[in-house]
Amino acid sequence: MLKKITVINGPNLNLLGSRKPEVYGNTSLDEIVSSLRKRAAELGYTIAAVQTNAEGAYVNAVQSAADDSVGLIVNAAAYSHTSVAIRDALENLKIPVVEVHLSNIYAREDFRHHSYISAVASGVIAGFGPLSYYLALEALAEILKHS
Amino acid sequence: MLKKITVINGPNLNLLGSRKPEVYGNTSLDEIVSSLRKRAAELGYTIAAVQTNAEGAYVNAVQSAADDSVGLIVNAAAYSHTSVAIRDALENLKIPVVEVHLSNIYAREDFRHHSYISAVASGVIAGFGPLSYYLALEALAEILKHS
Amino acid sequence: MLKKITVINGPNLNLLGSRKPEVYGNTSLDEIVSSLRKRAAELGYTIAAVQTNAEGAYVNAVQSAADDSVGLIVNAAAYSHTSVAIRDALENLKIPVVEVHLSNIYAREDFRHHSYISAVASGVIAGFGPLSYYLALEALAEILKHS
Amino acid sequence: MLKKITVINGPNLNLLGSRKPEVYGNTSLDEIVSSLRKRAAELGYTIAAVQTNAEGAYVNAVQSAADDSVGLIVNAAAYSHTSVAIRDALENLKIPVVEVHLSNIYAREDFRHHSYISAVASGVIAGFGPLSYYLALEALAEILKHS
Amino acid sequence: MLKKITVINGPNLNLLGSRKPEVYGNTSLDEIVSSLRKRAAELGYTIAAVQTNAEGAYVNAVQSAADDSVGLIVNAAAYSHTSVAIRDALENLKIPVVEVHLSNIYAREDFRHHSYISAVASGVIAGFGPLSYYLALEALAEILKHS
Amino acid sequence: MLKKITVINGPNLNLLGSRKPEVYGNTSLDEIVSSLRKRAAELGYTIAAVQTNAEGAYVNAVQSAADDSVGLIVNAAAYSHTSVAIRDALENLKIPVVEVHLSNIYAREDFRHHSYISAVASGVIAGFGPLSYYLALEALAEILKHS
Amino acid sequence: MLKKITVINGPNLNLLGSRKPEVYGNTSLDEIVSSLRKRAAELGYTIAAVQTNAEGAYVNAVQSAADDSVGLIVNAAAYSHTSVAIRDALENLKIPVVEVHLSNIYAREDFRHHSYISAVASGVIAGFGPLSYYLALEALAEILKHS
Amino acid sequence: MLKKITVINGPNLNLLGSRKPEVYGNTSLDEIVSSLRKRAAELGYTIAAVQTNAEGAYVNAVQSAADDSVGLIVNAAAYSHTSVAIRDALENLKIPVVEVHLSNIYAREDFRHHSYISAVASGVIAGFGPLSYYLALEALAEILKHS
Amino acid sequence: MLKKITVINGPNLNLLGSRKPEVYGNTSLDEIVSSLRKRAAELGYTIAAVQTNAEGAYVNAVQSAADDSVGLIVNAAAYSHTSVAIRDALENLKIPVVEVHLSNIYAREDFRHHSYISAVASGVIAGFGPLSYYLALEALAEILKHS
Amino acid sequence: MLKKITVINGPNLNLLGSRKPEVYGNTSLDEIVSSLRKRAAELGYTIAAVQTNAEGAYVNAVQSAADDSVGLIVNAAAYSHTSVAIRDALENLKIPVVEVHLSNIYAREDFRHHSYISAVASGVIAGFGPLSYYLALEALAEILKHS
Amino acid sequence: MLKKITVINGPNLNLLGSRKPEVYGNTSLDEIVSSLRKRAAELGYTIAAVQTNAEGAYVNAVQSAADDSVGLIVNAAAYSHTSVAIRDALENLKIPVVEVHLSNIYAREDFRHHSYISAVASGVIAGFGPLSYYLALEALAEILKHS
Amino acid sequence: MLKKITVINGPNLNLLGSRKPEVYGNTSLDEIVSSLRKRAAELGYTIAAVQTNAEGAYVNAVQSAADDSVGLIVNAAAYSHTSVAIRDALENLKIPVVEVHLSNIYAREDFRHHSYISAVASGVIAGFGPLSYYLALEALAEILKHS
Repeated sequence: MLKKITVINGPNLNLLGSRKPEVYGNTSLDEIVSSLRKRAAELGYTIAAVQTNAEGAYVNAVQSAADDSVGLIVNAAAYSHTSVAIRDALENLKIPVVEVHLSNIYAREDFRHHSYISAVASGVIAGFGPLSYYLALEALAEILKHS
Repeated sequence: MLKKITVINGPNLNLLGSRKPEVYGNTSLDEIVSSLRKRAAELGYTIAAVQTNAEGAYVNAVQSAADDSVGLIVNAAAYSHTSVAIRDALENLKIPVVEVHLSNIYAREDFRHHSYISAVASGVIAGFGPLSYYLALEALAEILKHS
Repeated sequence: MLKKITVINGPNLNLLGSRKPEVYGNTSLDEIVSSLRKRAAELGYTIAAVQTNAEGAYVNAVQSAADDSVGLIVNAAAYSHTSVAIRDALENLKIPVVEVHLSNIYAREDFRHHSYISAVASGVIAGFGPLSYYLALEALAEILKHS
Repeated sequence: MLKKITVINGPNLNLLGSRKPEVYGNTSLDEIVSSLRKRAAELGYTIAAVQTNAEGAYVNAVQSAADDSVGLIVNAAAYSHTSVAIRDALENLKIPVVEVHLSNIYAREDFRHHSYISAVASGVIAGFGPLSYYLALEALAEILKHS
Repeated sequence: MLKKITVINGPNLNLLGSRKPEVYGNTSLDEIVSSLRKRAAELGYTIAAVQTNAEGAYVNAVQSAADDSVGLIVNAAAYSHTSVAIRDALENLKIPVVEVHLSNIYAREDFRHHSYISAVASGVIAGFGPLSYYLALEALAEILKHS
Repeated sequence: MLKKITVINGPNLNLLGSRKPEVYGNTSLDEIVSSLRKRAAELGYTIAAVQTNAEGAYVNAVQSAADDSVGLIVNAAAYSHTSVAIRDALENLKIPVVEVHLSNIYAREDFRHHSYISAVASGVIAGFGPLSYYLALEALAEILKHS
Repeated sequence: MLKKITVINGPNLNLLGSRKPEVYGNTSLDEIVSSLRKRAAELGYTIAAVQTNAEGAYVNAVQSAADDSVGLIVNAAAYSHTSVAIRDALENLKIPVVEVHLSNIYAREDFRHHSYISAVASGVIAGFGPLSYYLALEALAEILKHS
Repeated sequence: MLKKITVINGPNLNLLGSRKPEVYGNTSLDEIVSSLRKRAAELGYTIAAVQTNAEGAYVNAVQSAADDSVGLIVNAAAYSHTSVAIRDALENLKIPVVEVHLSNIYAREDFRHHSYISAVASGVIAGFGPLSYYLALEALAEILKHS
Repeated sequence: MLKKITVINGPNLNLLGSRKPEVYGNTSLDEIVSSLRKRAAELGYTIAAVQTNAEGAYVNAVQSAADDSVGLIVNAAAYSHTSVAIRDALENLKIPVVEVHLSNIYAREDFRHHSYISAVASGVIAGFGPLSYYLALEALAEILKHS
Repeated sequence: MLKKITVINGPNLNLLGSRKPEVYGNTSLDEIVSSLRKRAAELGYTIAAVQTNAEGAYVNAVQSAADDSVGLIVNAAAYSHTSVAIRDALENLKIPVVEVHLSNIYAREDFRHHSYISAVASGVIAGFGPLSYYLALEALAEILKHS
Repeated sequence: MLKKITVINGPNLNLLGSRKPEVYGNTSLDEIVSSLRKRAAELGYTIAAVQTNAEGAYVNAVQSAADDSVGLIVNAAAYSHTSVAIRDALENLKIPVVEVHLSNIYAREDFRHHSYISAVASGVIAGFGPLSYYLALEALAEILKHS
Repeated sequence: MLKKITVINGPNLNLLGSRKPEVYGNTSLDEIVSSLRKRAAELGYTIAAVQTNAEGAYVNAVQSAADDSVGLIVNAAAYSHTSVAIRDALENLKIPVVEVHLSNIYAREDFRHHSYISAVASGVIAGFGPLSYYLALEALAEILKHS
């Protein structure tokens, strides 16, 4: 059976593709997940994808993923900048975590420059649109190969 | 059929009327909504009212309202000062948003002086108790008349 | 005899209608005052309107209004952000004060986010253009009804 | 019938005992609650225990407890540092509130040094592991004896 | 002919005696000046007293006083905290300047703790009500005796 | 022979019971120590109590206690907020230290929110009046039981 | 008829030549204006010169100049560092503005390093004494040649 | 029997007269106290004078004075800027306190601009050398006359 | 002929493989470049690699690359945090730039959290060791495919 | 033989004319220097012009110029905001230094508002494009005339 | 008779050798002083050594040393970071002062990076353990040779 | 063969002896190095001395020294305050590093109080002129004796 990688998406990412296309592009979250699934299969993984607008549900998703996944791709969106709770949930994990952002958060408003999550992730990929996720998958697969 | 204006209220506003009357007055949220409904009818609108103590549910409410409403009156209460997620949800909207506060947040503790929401709203009305809502309705109706 | 409400406008508002129309709209200050007068008459008030570019004259206007007015609508414009003197003048009053701004000051430069006046006003209305004034009049009338 | 004390625990505390034992010890939340119950019975109280990973649910729990409890023991965990909503919920209460933390938050990262909740609680107990809760119960019982 | 000491009072001090008596006492500015005049005569000085609500007029008064006075007592009130212009006017003087405040500005709001004027005055006397002025006169007389 | 726990009290605590009763209660320091002694005896400890208004004497007391005590209860009062010297003295100890405060320092002036001592103590108990000490004794006894 | 350039000077500049010669040199404002007039004539301009100690009058002067001048040379002196009102007045202009300072404000007290005016001027010339004005005239003439 | 006013002087003031005469003048502390005694006798008071280089001894002196004095003149010197302990001691007093400084602390290094003591004193007199003390005595006598 | 991608490495990266292996891994810069070259060939690009310890040389390298490359991979190492000059050089480019870091800079000292370069890059990849470079190449190839 | 004025240009100014023409204009550095040479000849000076992208080379250029030049025109570009080394080099000089910037640095990003160089230059000219240099030459010539 | 150099040591340094040997080494203060005495004798000086845990006593020691010593070696330990009183005492001295620290205070907690004493000492030696003292003696002897 | 100690000097130190003698003394860098060489020979070391005005060359020098030296004496001058690159180069070393400064950097401008290098050096010696270097040599020799 294939090992699972869970992708957890935060608030407003359900609107991807319709919202602010000049910042986030035209691809929907479903399309991103589909593409991830294809590549994951080649790499020998399945993808579980969660999206939630709620901080608590995000924490729950992290806790659940810890039970059955071998790695996490997290885009906590707005919660990246405000949630100590999600940071705490991630800090507990023994599996690798890759943080992604569609937009280049360092080129936007000041309050988006800091992510509580970055310090507890293996690494950060930001600014490449949907490509950020695909690169994160490659990164995670590579990390898992060596761990 | 009348066009809909959605009023979204944040945490602890369900207690309005019983809580800290010296700050928030004696009127309950239901009474405020009833009054809003009467005036809205005169202006040719219906009012949908939501109250939630949860940030994620607030984001959901904003996203839903975007589908069937012509304008929003938002009082995110405590989340005004801490929620980038709600700001992001509002920033996506193509309909006008009016921010209201019952109390004069600029005359209270320092951490209440800044609202993440203000910068993505058309305007802000704060400090008039329930009247803040009625003024917001007038404002919204006026904005909609010209848009 | 009708009771008087005084509207005090600060620096550069004399240019309203000609200046930065994309921020402040096309309505002149005279037009705003005329509209206010009509509505005030319906509500049982007269409007006295003052405009000055000088901080000291603004303080004088506040002190004078205290003698013969039942309420104040203040738009101190640039002085909102820098004048402790106007704040002090307003803080002494026993009549209600409503602060208005044509533009949404919270969506502009950082130095416009703080107003020395807000903490000594009953409430704040910002971002609705000339409508800010009309809403302030409604608010003031309502406050006066209950005081 | 015994009077009720409600203990409300925040995000990730459901993992207590398994998570970061070097910081939080090896006792599970259930074990803590069991111990609290025994001592509470001796003191003449029952314990209701809630745990949630969601800020909104935490606010709900505070509001509910206000109806049927005589005192609160709160460990908002990560939300202590970010939630104005929970502070507002607690600020409304007429019953005493004791804030507890398992770890010594003042000896950890800077962003854990400040708790929005402390200023609206009777007192704070931090750094004693599960013992923090038992001390809080003693404190609450003592406060209730004199109120 | 007696040498002149000029006392320059800033915004809102014309209302002294009527305004916030719990902070500023019940004595009017005229009464203070009268008392100052009596004591000044004993010390061999006349008192010229100016009050203005305008920053520019305050600067003018300082410049004028420099021509015919031997010392200044300045209470720039709100302008103390915001006016570089008055500081510059005072910094030019070759005669001694004593800064006074009726209230203890260091025990009030944070923005009143700093005075642009203090660093260019000989000394500061704050918090003694009208007595602040009389002490300033004694101080100035003493300074003049030795200069 | 019973093991000794030393309680070291800082500046102005000698006035306890007479000073600011609305903040610190009516119990004197002697009364607190007497109560502590009784409970300590039950737990198998003696209490040595020191009070000093001097930072250096406080450092001395910490150094002395290290020689003959098994644990410390420290209330450095005002020095908590300013003394690196006391922190250094405590940081050297191999015995457990519990920090107590009578008042809830997190609900008072900003400069009382930070204690140099907290980061080098096992834990902190603040806001329960004399009860803070009794809880600290329980905490210390419990810690000593496991060390 | 020659086109007009208006030079607007702020507080205390009327004392130029007598005040702090080690900082501002020995030339009076009249002498500066005379020199400017001669050079302006060669360049095909007349000079209108205004000096005021009042912020409001400065705003008025800017508004007036906008009606009949082709460019502005502004030295707002102390008001550079504190006046949002003058910045607003200048921001409205459609004619070029050159900011000058006699002294090198960047080499003086910290509060003189920031000028509210710089960001709305074409450019800044500071530190050359009266020469700052002559350079500003050359700059303005050059800008006007190309606009 | 005459009522007592206690003057408490802080660190390094024992060197007055020899130390930094360009800042503190040439008068010794004994000479200041002698002059104060003469004037106090005229006003109907005796002067008790204490000087100490130790913060704890300063606290002790404040506590002692509270027992037998009708008012305090305090110059905590360097401790003004660093001692919460002395502030706490003074805050407890029911007798009036006047803070004095020989030098104009607001014109010196930044860390001397803030005094922990000012907010708990009736008023502050700074910058007049020994005269600061004499003015403080006059102030205190006047305050005592009205209390 | 293949299109060129230039990789520019900053100070101390020449020591890669020998320096701090626990942070930067054991792979040398040459080995990274070799691997990049292989993958680039598959993607249809050649790799030019530059390493320099000098900020000025780094600026030169950026300027040169602009002439003959279709994209840049930049790891400015320590200069990321301090160099406005490199930012300016990159900001001028019309070709895409991807910023990489071997270590997770957001999990290290505070002064490494900010990069002057991030805001002028397309995106950022940090924390994956040599993998960061390979991901950057994939990202760049993808970006170039669509531009 | 003519006296020499050295013009030292910093990083990326070699690209002038091609880079960001909307900010820096279309004139190349060579063209600016040519124009400067013509005017300098009229004034009796020769111009030596240096451009470097390296901070160390910039320091060298300043040191060299000190040997054979009578004055300096410096545009350290990005290094203005970050280089203490260039400041130190300039601070040593006995010849006058004029700082120039093509763009109005005070109207750009916050990190460009401060220049380490300004405080050690005679004066600053910013925002006039190539004209900034010509004005600097006039200023320098004038300064040299009087020194 | 040999000239005296006084070494004044601050809080907790009496524990040297027993306390935190990984930071402060194993040498006791007595051993350091003995070594200093030997070397001092060779250089023609005697050493007086003082250690105190009290800030006031430290001030006294500085004042006393000023009477009979030709130079000071000061390690104020924790008081370095908090004591304006000791700074003031040292600032008065006419003899040279060398500041020493056993540990490298710049590599420890942020609050240890700043020493109030450094700015009034001739120089600072930190981080060499007991060697810091011996180097300070060499430095002082050298300074005294040239003064 | 003697072991080598490398001394690396930063920007503008080549001018030592001619530059700002009131701050840096009259000794040239060559004279300092000569003296160091003599003493080093006695201690059994040779001295290699490098001076550069360039940050990159400074990094190179550190890297080179790591190959053939047993210890470093570094005076990075202005780069101490701005260079993360030099810090990184030093942080990699396995040989001891002593940081020196001729002047007392803690008594100069604020931006000179912090050195990026201090935290990665064994210790710091500042303020003794050329003597700083000689003391550093003694320190280094002592450290090497024990390592």
